[in-house]
This record gives sequence, structure tokens and C-alpha cells, in this order.
Amino acid sequence: MSPMKVFGHPMLTNVARVLFFLEEVGAEYELVPVDFLAGEHKRPQHLKLNPFGKMPGFQDGDLVLFESRAISKYILRKYGKADLDLLRDNGSIEESSMVDVWTEVEAQQYYPAIAPVVFECIINPFIMRTAPTNQTVVDESLERLRGVLGIYEARLEKSSYLAGDSVSFADLNHIPFTFYFMATPYASLFDEYPKVKAWWERLMARPAVKRVCKNMPTKF
Amino acid sequence: MSPMKVFGHPMLTNVARVLFFLEEVGAEYELVPVDFLAGEHKRPQHLKLNPFGKMPGFQDGDLVLFESRAISKYILRKYGKADLDLLRDNGSIEESSMVDVWTEVEAQQYYPAIAPVVFECIINPFIMRTAPTNQTVVDESLERLRGVLGIYEARLEKSSYLAGDSVSFADLNHIPFTFYFMATPYASLFDEYPKVKAWWERLMARPAVKRVCKNMPTKF
Repeated sequence: MSPMKVFGHPMLTNVARVLFFLEEVGAEYELVPVDFLAGEHKRPQHLKLNPFGKMPGFQDGDLVLFESRAISKYILRKYGKADLDLLRDNGSIEESSMVDVWTEVEAQQYYPAIAPVVFECIINPFIMRTAPTNQTVVDESLERLRGVLGIYEARLEKSSYLAGDSVSFADLNHIPFTFYFMATPYASLFDEYPKVKAWWERLMARPAVKRVCKNMPTKF
Repeated sequence: MSPMKVFGHPMLTNVARVLFFLEEVGAEYELVPVDFLAGEHKRPQHLKLNPFGKMPGFQDGDLVLFESRAISKYILRKYGKADLDLLRDNGSIEESSMVDVWTEVEAQQYYPAIAPVVFECIINPFIMRTAPTNQTVVDESLERLRGVLGIYEARLEKSSYLAGDSVSFADLNHIPFTFYFMATPYASLFDEYPKVKAWWERLMARPAVKRVCKNMPTKF
């Protein structure tokens, strides 16, 4: 069988998300480059894979999927190993619900706080070259992020990872934007939250994570 | 066993989301009012249920959950019936992945397009009384929503519902914001997308949906 195909550039946060899970399960895959600066993701060939013209596109045999979180869950369900069990599919409904809770927290609370800092400090000025840093947006987002990190600190006083004492889908979803945040001038914010900092260092020490992050540039 | 408890006001979109699924599965539950205009959701009693101070809070026996999408999945997994199977947990990985894809599309593409219109036209001016309608935001969001609805129209030409020929978790997640959108001056936008309009009418005809929507006021 031909390997799974991921269409997109590995520096993009949503592409990186899918790659983390492919590397975690150790599946064979092919990364097919899409030149987003040339607008390739808006052309008919890519729109067949993702009608919204976003990246990544994804193909496994005849199956076409889009939306990085959905693709990632598919990879874990189809190719995941029992001893990894990042979705807790092998556990109780209560255990998998805790993964769902903290996966939603990432999407609904953490991402809206951290992403604007990354967009303003890295993505817009250096990658897209669309706009200089808007300091008001950065400052408001940092304030919001402090609130979120305070709640994470309390949570991580109770368990090593967000959904319990082993790593889950929820934790790994935090990596793409946090990785780029750590390349902004505000990385030291995490020093104020020692449990969060230690959690972050545990995630970054994972071999699968290291393999993906080496293709995510932070100097421009 | 005491019934599940949902803490929050049924007019709020994230509370309504949970109520749709409780009504769909026919589970017993108690709705515990939280006076959000008086800031009750920011007080210690509510923060024990949801550390982010958001609604709804949720309790089932000793289990406390937050984030409405996570609560909803818990309800379906714990109390769902095989003949409803809104998550396609009884089907193949490919089938449940299509539910994941369109659930993420709702969160990542549809919501960011439709929500600003609802916030600007209904929630901010009439419920929160914080600001008048910002017409620029409304116009930009309507433009974005047209793009999204065009893709939905193409999808719904292939199947009656987003993830196939029967209703799923993905479809029902669209209801709260679409319901309020239909009370804005822009409801007729949906008339331009006949498959989407018919899909919406099928969702609104569901008895469980009707029971929840009668507690979602659209006149102020």
C-alpha cells in the first residue's frame, strides 16, 4: 500500500500538528510540498483535497480528509498503538472525556490567547510579510495568556499531563503554537509557571516532537 | 442516581449545545440557573465546575466536565443509543472521521464566519448591552460566510447531511449560532443556498431541537 500523503509545508502549525502524530505512531508517510507563498493551496488540485483551500491536505489510499485535528484523530485511531493510546480509546468514557475537555481547552481558551502573539511577532511580519507587529494586540493577548497559564499551573499541580499522568492528544495539540511562541521576545512568561514550564520541557523532549520541530524555522 | 446537572442559562449558545444532545438521547437532567448578567459564573462556586469561568458547568455524579463540545461527546458516549449513533462510534474509523472533519469545519470555518454577525446584531447590543452593531465587521463576516456556505452547498449536493446520509454530531453543532443568525436581518442569505436551507429546515424539524430552541429568545 502506498504511504499516507500530507500536502503542505512542515513549518505551518496545522501541518506540523499532523506530522507530530504520524511520527508518534511511527507510520510511513510522504510529505508533498505545497507552495503557499505562490498560492498553490487555492488552486483546483489542492481544492480537491481541501475545499476550504487550507493546509494540510491528506490522503490515505482513497480516503481524503481535511482539518488537522480530524486528520490527527484518524491517524491515531487507524495506526495508533495500544501502549501509546493518546485518545484513551482503550480506557473508560470518563478518561477519554478528560482528553476531549483539554483538547477543547486548547482550541477554545489557549489558542485564542497565544496565537495572536505568534501571528503578530512571527507569522505576519516575517513569513507573510503583511504587517508589522501590533503591540496592543500582543499586550492584550499576553494578559489573556497569563490567565490561561495560571489555570494550567493549577491543573498540572494535580497530574503530570493535562488529562492525567500520561501524555495525551490534548497535550500534543499545544505544541505548534507554543513552539513558535518560545521564539518570540515573550518566552520568559512561561518561567512564572514552573509546572507548565516542566510540562512543556517534557513534551519537547519527545523524539517524535524533535523530529518535526527541526523543520519549523524560528529565525528569519 | 441523581440526574446530570447543567449549570448555565439555556439561551447561551454553549449551554444550548449541551441541551440539544441531552434531549436527543432522552437523558434525565437538571438545568441549574447561573445569573451571568450578575457575574455568577466568575464566582468560586462556579469556578469549581469550570476554572475558566465559562458556561456551561456540568456534573454527572462525581464527574465534573467543562467545554460544551467535550460534555456533548460524553453525553453521547455514555447515554447515546445505537440507532442514533451521532458520533458514528458504531461504524468504521472512516465514518467517524467524517464526523470529526465536519465538526472541525464547524469550529474552524463556519463559526468564525457566522458568529461575528450574531455577536454584532444580537448578543452585544441586546443581551450584553456593551456596544452597537459594527457594520464593517458584519459585512466582512457575511462575505466570509458566503464562501463557507458555497462549500456547504456543494457538500450537501452529495449527501443529506454533512457527514453522510444521516444526521451526526457535526450537523447538530451548527444549530446554536445558526438559530440566532436566522433572527438577524441577514437570514435571507441562506435562500441563495437551497441545499443548505433544506438541511437547516431538516435540523429544525427535530423534536429535540424544538424543545431547546423554545428557550432561546430572539426578540428583545
